[in-house]
Parts: sequence; structure tokens; C-alpha cells
Amino acid sequence: MRSPFLSCHWSSRLSISSCLRDVIFPGVCSMAAAVVGGSVTGCRRLCGSVLRDLLQPAQGVLFDCDGVLWEGERALPGAPELVQLLHRHGKAALFVSNNSRRSLSELQQRFSRLGFGGVRSEHLFSSALCSALFLRQRLAAQPGAKVYVIGGPGLRTELRDAGLQLVGDPAEEGSGEAETEPESSVRAVLVGYDEEFNFHKLSQACLYLRDPECLLVATDRDPWHLMSGGRRTPGTGSLAAAVETATSRKATVVGKPSVYMFEYVVGRFGIDPSRTLMVGDRLEMDIQFGKNCGLTTILTLTGVSQLADVQANMESDIPAERDLVPDYYVDSIADLIPGLED
Amino acid sequence: MRSPFLSCHWSSRLSISSCLRDVIFPGVCSMAAAVVGGSVTGCRRLCGSVLRDLLQPAQGVLFDCDGVLWEGERALPGAPELVQLLHRHGKAALFVSNNSRRSLSELQQRFSRLGFGGVRSEHLFSSALCSALFLRQRLAAQPGAKVYVIGGPGLRTELRDAGLQLVGDPAEEGSGEAETEPESSVRAVLVGYDEEFNFHKLSQACLYLRDPECLLVATDRDPWHLMSGGRRTPGTGSLAAAVETATSRKATVVGKPSVYMFEYVVGRFGIDPSRTLMVGDRLEMDIQFGKNCGLTTILTLTGVSQLADVQANMESDIPAERDLVPDYYVDSIADLIPGLED
Repeated sequence: MRSPFLSCHWSSRLSISSCLRDVIFPGVCSMAAAVVGGSVTGCRRLCGSVLRDLLQPAQGVLFDCDGVLWEGERALPGAPELVQLLHRHGKAALFVSNNSRRSLSELQQRFSRLGFGGVRSEHLFSSALCSALFLRQRLAAQPGAKVYVIGGPGLRTELRDAGLQLVGDPAEEGSGEAETEPESSVRAVLVGYDEEFNFHKLSQACLYLRDPECLLVATDRDPWHLMSGGRRTPGTGSLAAAVETATSRKATVVGKPSVYMFEYVVGRFGIDPSRTLMVGDRLEMDIQFGKNCGLTTILTLTGVSQLADVQANMESDIPAERDLVPDYYVDSIADLIPGLED
Repeated sequence: MRSPFLSCHWSSRLSISSCLRDVIFPGVCSMAAAVVGGSVTGCRRLCGSVLRDLLQPAQGVLFDCDGVLWEGERALPGAPELVQLLHRHGKAALFVSNNSRRSLSELQQRFSRLGFGGVRSEHLFSSALCSALFLRQRLAAQPGAKVYVIGGPGLRTELRDAGLQLVGDPAEEGSGEAETEPESSVRAVLVGYDEEFNFHKLSQACLYLRDPECLLVATDRDPWHLMSGGRRTPGTGSLAAAVETATSRKATVVGKPSVYMFEYVVGRFGIDPSRTLMVGDRLEMDIQFGKNCGLTTILTLTGVSQLADVQANMESDIPAERDLVPDYYVDSIADLIPGLED
């Protein structure tokens, strides 16, 4: 029988020696490899010649942001250097974030503030931006259509910049109150991250969504976010669950793991999935997204998902979970730097 | 082949003539009967001798309230008379409501106000009361344990009356602010109907539920409630979905269709399930509750579920839905009155 450690996505590019070296790494490699459903599957630590053979021919890398590039207001060590190195090697470094809190310009400022040089706004694909693009497209044939937004000022800015009309928007005509908005003009309810979420907003969403033609869209389905000290704060997914339950509707999700976000990336940069890597910290969002889009997937252990979660998926009885195993993992994205160094 | 109309829960008590008469009722009876999965199942209109044969030997009837006895501030025609008639015949009329908005005394006042005479507070089993009893029992061995409540004043009253200590309760000691409550003293989060629900409360629930030993309990899982004009308002189920998603936890539900509520009914009245009827307007709550508790189930069409929903369940590919078919239906509970008249 073939060793599970010799089986991986890019096996054609592997040298046997590097694989054998991984086998004798203490613990972690073997922990994250298993024989599943009769076929051999594995999640290998990405290092050495495997790393070089993966990164050097790559056209570009998509990065999740929170828990991958930074943790709160602190860039993770090596992250700015890696992005700079990719630029220097003529590779695309693009950013796909489910965070709908910030407008694109706020997100770009954050990159600058945390020391990421050369990141331009066209490199950024937030769920706020992508939801705006999605809704503009879906509502294009309905002049006067309005969007009821559960979300913060950053999301509203992004929607307004895309030319969308928002319910209760003081920038719109006088009758800004949601209560006085004729239901028939509201053609979509968008649920994003909203620290001002409350029962009233939930009721308003119910009111508009009585009309089955009114779209229900969520920026993302992240259930919660990690805070410092292991605390969790509710994510958009929890607010979307409330709206979905109260309306017996299912939201269309624009952010990861949905492929919409990737369609916008491809539309702007024409990248080839088979030569693109996806790096993220959350299995069910980032890694699932990479798999849905045909990308090579790398889990970084600086955020939400850990090797124990990979292992649990490998051993799961549920086929969808068993398929949700990244091709590779790194302790942090600083581990990718040697792949581009001379 | 045996006619589906001859097959029903209480078929041993049926006279052939009454069944044959039901067969020729226009449309509705045949609409709600089907051959499912090779066995014959049906939901019969309850009338005539079948009704008398069912009600006269019955020990008592459990009623849901909203959409069964009343609609908003209006008693449904015949409802007070039916309750009075049950009392006169020495039968128990008990009330099992998932509504956690009102305290027991408020609920009793509502009965009086809407013309239901002779209904005493011990006949009332609200999800607010049952959640209080449940938590008192579960926290009995933990002196000083506090409950973080997502819910209104009625629910808080019920919990306080059961001797429970609530987080942020002005009736408790000075440090009333939820933020200052030591997490370790909060041993349960209770989610009920709360028109003041907001992101902050959701975050607080996340904070307390980090401890896997802290209980997550929901008064009920009603996803929404019907309002006048067909409008819907969010139910506790939608708030519970938000908390469950944000914490990756599953709530223990005290209200229907869980059997906890029935255990409290049996504990107080010692009724025999095989001689008790359950009348409700919501398949997935009331009828499921009746089935879970071994009661004969009657759907009344004055509320949420309609015959089309029964029919959809009968034709469902999902076994749990296919089993969720009431034994009988009535247009309104006034239709039960002839069963007790001389």
C-alpha cells in the first residue's frame, strides 16, 4: 500500500526525499493524515522543496485577512514581508475577506497602517464590496429598487458607492424612516455584521421578506469571530440565522465559501485557479472556498481552525466534512517566505 | 383495499356510518388523506359520532392558546363556551402555551379579560413557567447560580417567582450590570421572546456560554408568530438560532414540542395520555408535542397550519414530516362543542 504521506495534491511536483523528510517530522504530519473512505487523503505541512515547487510556478495567492495577516491591530510576523515578496516576484497577492464591517477605503487604510506596502484597493475583495456588486447586478433591471441593510456604516458606504439605494438612508430622500418605506420598493434585504442589530431590525426584515420576490442576501455566514483571550463575538452568520428562522427563507451568501467572490476576482484579474493558492484560517469558510473554486488550499494555524479540526474532518462520517481537508498547512504564513527566497 | 377514511387513531370507536358520511364531505376530507409509504394514514375532519366517541370518554383536553382560543385580543367564537362545557362535564381543560412573554398572572388576566370563566392559574402551563421550573430543578444543586435572561419582564417575573437569581436584575444586589457579573456565577442562559433583543445581549450570551457547563435553554423554538393581516413577527426560535449559531451550541427547549411541559402537566394533574386530547394550530409545535406525549391530536385551522401543510407532510419524502400528521382537524374549536352537548 502507498504511504498516505506520499499522496497529496501536487504529488507530481514532489521529490520523494522531501516527502520522506516530512514523514519523520514529529507528530503533526502523521496526525493530519489518514486513510479515508478507502482512498488516501492527507494534509501535509508545507515546507522545503514541496513549498518551493508549489509557490514558484504559482500565478498568485489569495489570502483571508483576520487570523491570517493580522490579529486585531497587530500584523502577524512575516505577513507584510510575504506580501512584498510576492509582489517582487510578479505574483498576484489578493485579499478575500468575509468581514463586512469596513468599506474598501477603510480596509485599505488598515493594510497601510499595519505595514502592508503596495496593497491597492483593487486587490481587495471584501464581502461588503462583493455584496454591493452582487446586488447591483441582481437589481439592475428594477429601477428604484431599494435595499434594506442590516449592517454598519462601512457596509452602507460600499453599497452607496455601488449606486444602490438604501432604506432609511439619510442620504436618500426625506422619508428616511424604515417604517414609512413602501414595502413594494424594497427588493432586497442584505444581512451583514451589525453591532446595532436588534429586534426591530429583525422585524423590519420579516416585513420586507413577506414578498417572496424580495431577495434575502447575507454578506457571509461566519458564525462568530475570535477576539483576544479566546473570547468570541457574534458573526454575521448568527444574525443571518435569526433572519432566516424568522422568515422561513434561506439567504444567498455572497462571501466565502460561495464562489461569487471568486467570480469577481477572476473578472478583474483573470487568474487561473489551477495556478492559484488560497490561504486561510477557517476550514468551513476559507478552505471550503478554495475547494469550491478549484484552488490549492493552505490552512494557517494562527486563527480559528487547528489540526485537531482537520483530523476530526478526516475521521468524520459526513462526506462533506471528510472532503473538507486542506491540501497543506503552515504554522503561520511566515512559513511561506522560504518558498520565494533565492 | 381498506378505505383510508376508515383508518384513524380511534377507529375502534368509529361507527361505519359516520365514516361513510365523512367520505362524501366536499373535498376537504379526501384532500387530507393519502396512502403514505405503503401504509394508510389519514387526517379526518372531526365531527358527528366520531367527535362524540372521542370527547365523551376523554379525561381532558390540552389547548394551545394563540390561534386556538384567541386571535390577538379577540376570543375565537365558541372558545369560552367550550372551556365552560368541559368544566361542566368534569373534564380537565388545561392550557399549554409556548408564549414566554407573559407571567402566569398576566396570562390568567388575559383569560378573564377575553371571557374564559373558571380558568385558574394552576391550569396554565406557559413556556415561561415551565422554563422557570426546569431551571430551578437543574440549578438546585448550585447555590448562588445565576441565570442570564434574554426575555421580557413577564418571563423575568416568572423566573424570580421560582426563586431564581437573574443577572442584571435590579431586584438583586447592587452590581446589577450584566457586564460586571462574574462569568463563573452564571450557570444558565435562557432565551425567550424579547422585543429588546440586540447585539449586546447576543454577545453577553456568547461570553457566558464559553463555559461548556453553563446551560443554554430556550423557552420555545417558535420561528415566528402570525399577526393581524398575515404579517409575521419574529419568534423566540429566531433569537435562539442567533445564540446557537454564535456559540456553536444547541439549546435545550422546554416548550412544545419537547415533553418537559407535559411532564409538568402530568406532575400536577396525573392525567392519562391515552385519554387526553391535544388541540393546536401549529403542526411542528402542537401536533408534534401531542405525538411526542402519546396524545390524540387535533389541528384547528384558525392559526398557522392549514390543510395544505398537512397534505405536504403526508406527501413528504422525509419520514419525520410524514409522521407529523394530526389524527383529526376542525375548522375552529367551536366545532368541538357538539361532542359534549346532550
